[in-house]
Amino acid sequence: MFGLLTRAESDRLRVVLVSTRNPLNIGAAARAMSNFGFRQLRVVNPYAPAFQEARSAVGASSVLAQAEIFETVANAVADCTLVVGTSAIRTRHLHHSVRGTKDAAQLIRRRLRSSRVALLFGSEKFGLSNDDLSHCHWLLRIPTHEDNLSMNLAQAVAVCLYELIRDTKVWPAAGQLPPASAAEVERLTTILLDALHASGFLDLRRVSDSEQRIRRLVRRLHLPARDAVIWLGIFRQMAWKLRSAERQKT
Amino acid sequence: MFGLLTRAESDRLRVVLVSTRNPLNIGAAARAMSNFGFRQLRVVNPYAPAFQEARSAVGASSVLAQAEIFETVANAVADCTLVVGTSAIRTRHLHHSVRGTKDAAQLIRRRLRSSRVALLFGSEKFGLSNDDLSHCHWLLRIPTHEDNLSMNLAQAVAVCLYELIRDTKVWPAAGQLPPASAAEVERLTTILLDALHASGFLDLRRVSDSEQRIRRLVRRLHLPARDAVIWLGIFRQMAWKLRSAERQKT
Repeated sequence: MFGLLTRAESDRLRVVLVSTRNPLNIGAAARAMSNFGFRQLRVVNPYAPAFQEARSAVGASSVLAQAEIFETVANAVADCTLVVGTSAIRTRHLHHSVRGTKDAAQLIRRRLRSSRVALLFGSEKFGLSNDDLSHCHWLLRIPTHEDNLSMNLAQAVAVCLYELIRDTKVWPAAGQLPPASAAEVERLTTILLDALHASGFLDLRRVSDSEQRIRRLVRRLHLPARDAVIWLGIFRQMAWKLRSAERQKT
Repeated sequence: MFGLLTRAESDRLRVVLVSTRNPLNIGAAARAMSNFGFRQLRVVNPYAPAFQEARSAVGASSVLAQAEIFETVANAVADCTLVVGTSAIRTRHLHHSVRGTKDAAQLIRRRLRSSRVALLFGSEKFGLSNDDLSHCHWLLRIPTHEDNLSMNLAQAVAVCLYELIRDTKVWPAAGQLPPASAAEVERLTTILLDALHASGFLDLRRVSDSEQRIRRLVRRLHLPARDAVIWLGIFRQMAWKLRSAERQKT
């Protein structure tokens, strides 16, 4: 079980790279797949030397080693019940419906419960051709900025797969350290006030409500219990040192 | 207006690449930035020939051309009020709170409404060092699979930035005080360290990474700018008094 998807569900997704030219991109796409727990890579009509190079690279992942090669998109998606194309381009493809990443991921996850899904990525230069697209049920578009619509292939793979597993809770809610009790905070305030008197800080800033100001200042820190202990030690040491310096003077 | 973020808000995010080695990764990170409408790239201590190569590459983006170079993380994040580190590693960094991408993006977007945020990415091999991390308020972790936790640098950048622009929900303003900048927090850290040395606190607790611990301790306070000024005055006065007591002794 990984996130929303079981292992079996993750293994029902086929990432299909169509006519990829650059071996680095094939390797990087495979890495993104293993980052997010997907293993079934299919390459269609890759630039052959590039694919061989990527596959034989030192440290090539098991994803890459087990990748399947197909000559046509039709064959690569034959065992899938849902075929989704990715595209950055806004103008063409009016004959396909286009979904944003969120909606797309939800539909893909749902389908993966029972059957295989192919997610197609086109070549670096041209994306998916109209012929490739004709195999797709609909298109997924990553919401890129109009200044630069076109993503790097492997980054697009990473973003799509991330969206598929995004609702995973790997980590417990963070930053929720147990807070210091009011008694601990007040003890800290007292020792800080002592240090402030000893240092002359409060004498320099004579206001009638200076204690209240310091009390509020300390409470605004919202200290966790763990840190309150450290600050208590810090101010205790400072107060002691300041007082002992005073005593030596007299 | 792009997604949730206005142009001004997007331009408040600094993507900070620390000690990046591979020029292709710098170029790819810059491309992901422009894909998602971000423009402010900072590089800290890049492998110099790599950076020059990336910058002068044919078709290098305006993001890359305008990237700023810094010698230290402290300088690169000085004008930011929130500094977020990215990390794939689960075991170390228990001293930082770790947020998932969703929560992290929400907090970052909220902060971008009023001030600058730095998002740090470490080197390809080692990620962010403990010293780099000590400048961070908290860490963001992309929920990668345990089979392969570590993402390609530029893919990680793409996923994080995608998450920032993904959601269309508008978050209510959080009526909070303007936060202290990283430069102010660092100044506070420096004067606190001085006071701690003068008080003998650090001599009593000799650990090799005591400065990093103090740096993290101060960042966990999440001080508003107004309070940072008060604490700065407090520690300055204490340090001065402790030092002057020392001088009188000798």
